[in-house]
Amino acid sequence: MQGLAGLAIAGALSILTSAGGCATTSHDPLPSWNEGPAKSTITDFIQRVTTEGNPGFVPPAQRIAVFDNDGTLWSEQPAYVQLLFAIDRVKTLASRHPEWRTTQPFKAVLDGDMRTLAASGEKGMLDLLMATHADMTTDEFADIVRDWITTARHPSRHRLYTRMVYQPMLELLNYLRANGFRTYIVSGGGVEFMRVFAEGVYGVPPEQVIGSSIETQFEMRSTGPVLNRLPRIDFIDDKAGKPVAIHKFIGRRPIAAFGNSDGDLQMLQWAAAGNGARLMVIVHHTDDRREWAYDRDSHIGRLDRALDEADRQGWTIVDMKRDWRVVYPQ
Amino acid sequence: MQGLAGLAIAGALSILTSAGGCATTSHDPLPSWNEGPAKSTITDFIQRVTTEGNPGFVPPAQRIAVFDNDGTLWSEQPAYVQLLFAIDRVKTLASRHPEWRTTQPFKAVLDGDMRTLAASGEKGMLDLLMATHADMTTDEFADIVRDWITTARHPSRHRLYTRMVYQPMLELLNYLRANGFRTYIVSGGGVEFMRVFAEGVYGVPPEQVIGSSIETQFEMRSTGPVLNRLPRIDFIDDKAGKPVAIHKFIGRRPIAAFGNSDGDLQMLQWAAAGNGARLMVIVHHTDDRREWAYDRDSHIGRLDRALDEADRQGWTIVDMKRDWRVVYPQ
Repeated sequence: MQGLAGLAIAGALSILTSAGGCATTSHDPLPSWNEGPAKSTITDFIQRVTTEGNPGFVPPAQRIAVFDNDGTLWSEQPAYVQLLFAIDRVKTLASRHPEWRTTQPFKAVLDGDMRTLAASGEKGMLDLLMATHADMTTDEFADIVRDWITTARHPSRHRLYTRMVYQPMLELLNYLRANGFRTYIVSGGGVEFMRVFAEGVYGVPPEQVIGSSIETQFEMRSTGPVLNRLPRIDFIDDKAGKPVAIHKFIGRRPIAAFGNSDGDLQMLQWAAAGNGARLMVIVHHTDDRREWAYDRDSHIGRLDRALDEADRQGWTIVDMKRDWRVVYPQ
Repeated sequence: MQGLAGLAIAGALSILTSAGGCATTSHDPLPSWNEGPAKSTITDFIQRVTTEGNPGFVPPAQRIAVFDNDGTLWSEQPAYVQLLFAIDRVKTLASRHPEWRTTQPFKAVLDGDMRTLAASGEKGMLDLLMATHADMTTDEFADIVRDWITTARHPSRHRLYTRMVYQPMLELLNYLRANGFRTYIVSGGGVEFMRVFAEGVYGVPPEQVIGSSIETQFEMRSTGPVLNRLPRIDFIDDKAGKPVAIHKFIGRRPIAAFGNSDGDLQMLQWAAAGNGARLMVIVHHTDDRREWAYDRDSHIGRLDRALDEADRQGWTIVDMKRDWRVVYPQ
């Protein structure tokens, strides 16, 4: 049933990603983008790198575009989706863990005390992560995520999380792929969390999802080999870790990079420093009516240093309120 | 000059990979393979997974084939090519390191004393690796490898190492790709060593090369951002590490796997345990005239447990002497 449900949702979700355009037809490939400098910079860039004979032409093999996920492809307020998943898991598993009633950060989760949870800091987050993400096989974890993402809804918007992806970015992903780009996700989020829905929701296959990871271990069991998820951090794919991961996984420098926070600064710097045509884009959360408005002082998705750097370097800043005709899929 | 030389050799080498066949034409896509059970098992498998309507049909996105490198795609005797590279680097750098004259394992390398070098064990190998592979940027390392692989020759065969790849395997790589497969290298060798030549020699792009790695660190220098190679092991992509790396980098289970030693056993077990049509192949070094003959007692590329497992599981064993019409490109 789990497998079938997963397939069904993936099929339904893939409809979302089929809306984008093809550069060779005359219709607008980015219908959810308002006309303006952000849209024209993007379309000019794609035109430039795909036109043979143009000095900015880039062969298809080198057309690599990298996207942050949280806050760049879907909403990250009031908390990262994966944290909301971990919180739900604690509630689900609480009956098997009576000790959580008196142990932080689990007590805070069960009491709905987000202030104490936040105050538990990195140590608390790590405890929460390991208690909910480890000590199971990779297949078991994928099944749990698939069940959750298929049904869980955002606390205030009451939408499925997979319907809180940005329609303009779905169109952009499609537009890039239609022009020979390979689109990668490079996120601080967990790689095995994202891979469950990235193909159905974004059209990004598992091998093009890069993220943070915990260690796994090969074990030969009586039922056959498994990969067991260990309660140990393997890699944090954030900040200076992003260019490291890009080099490790792709081995090529991207020519386009899309982020929304200081966690994406080094990824953008790394991509920007290559030769030839480049496109660096920051999604700026300016729309407190349709989405959220936050930047320099936000606890989540803080955009401060990268905003200054974007100004200095002339990177493209997408003003959600001004540049996006719609935010979420209708 | 380095860059141009690299491009030139990549171009020349790519000729090697253009020999393969296309499944839709009538000519033999594997001309360097003698008729026999190994060849027919391979061609039957590809036929089966690519024929729509056949119960074994596999959609293109899931056609993932993984190949070990040393001993599976090119020769690994009398030592791994990357070790011979490290030895050459020690000789090149010796004038800057007078202390190496009296320090093991460097003294052994400079004295040509392979017995003492081998006796230095894992610690010695690690010292040799770090002294020759770290403390430089990723770009600098790639340039050094490119210069070396373009000119260095095998100690007894006097061929370029890139001409000691197996012609039948080049044909097989092409044959698989012509049938919608993505071909990955999954090797114990260093990922940044292999990526320099894997595309030109094997037609395998950087993002499909998985290997062992040392840590890198993002640094912002006055000339721009770099990734600096640190003298610390990041991951050993061998034995039980191979399925871990396959899952981490690809996120899908391969349907075909090719190896030659016990270091590939877990990769083959992992790939074999998936549902649907599977192809597991072991290259058995049986040809002491055209290549080398070794298996259960070899120090390099030992094939013992995996040979037993192949018998038990009915995996395909390629007998180099019997099954290959030619070994190296002519």
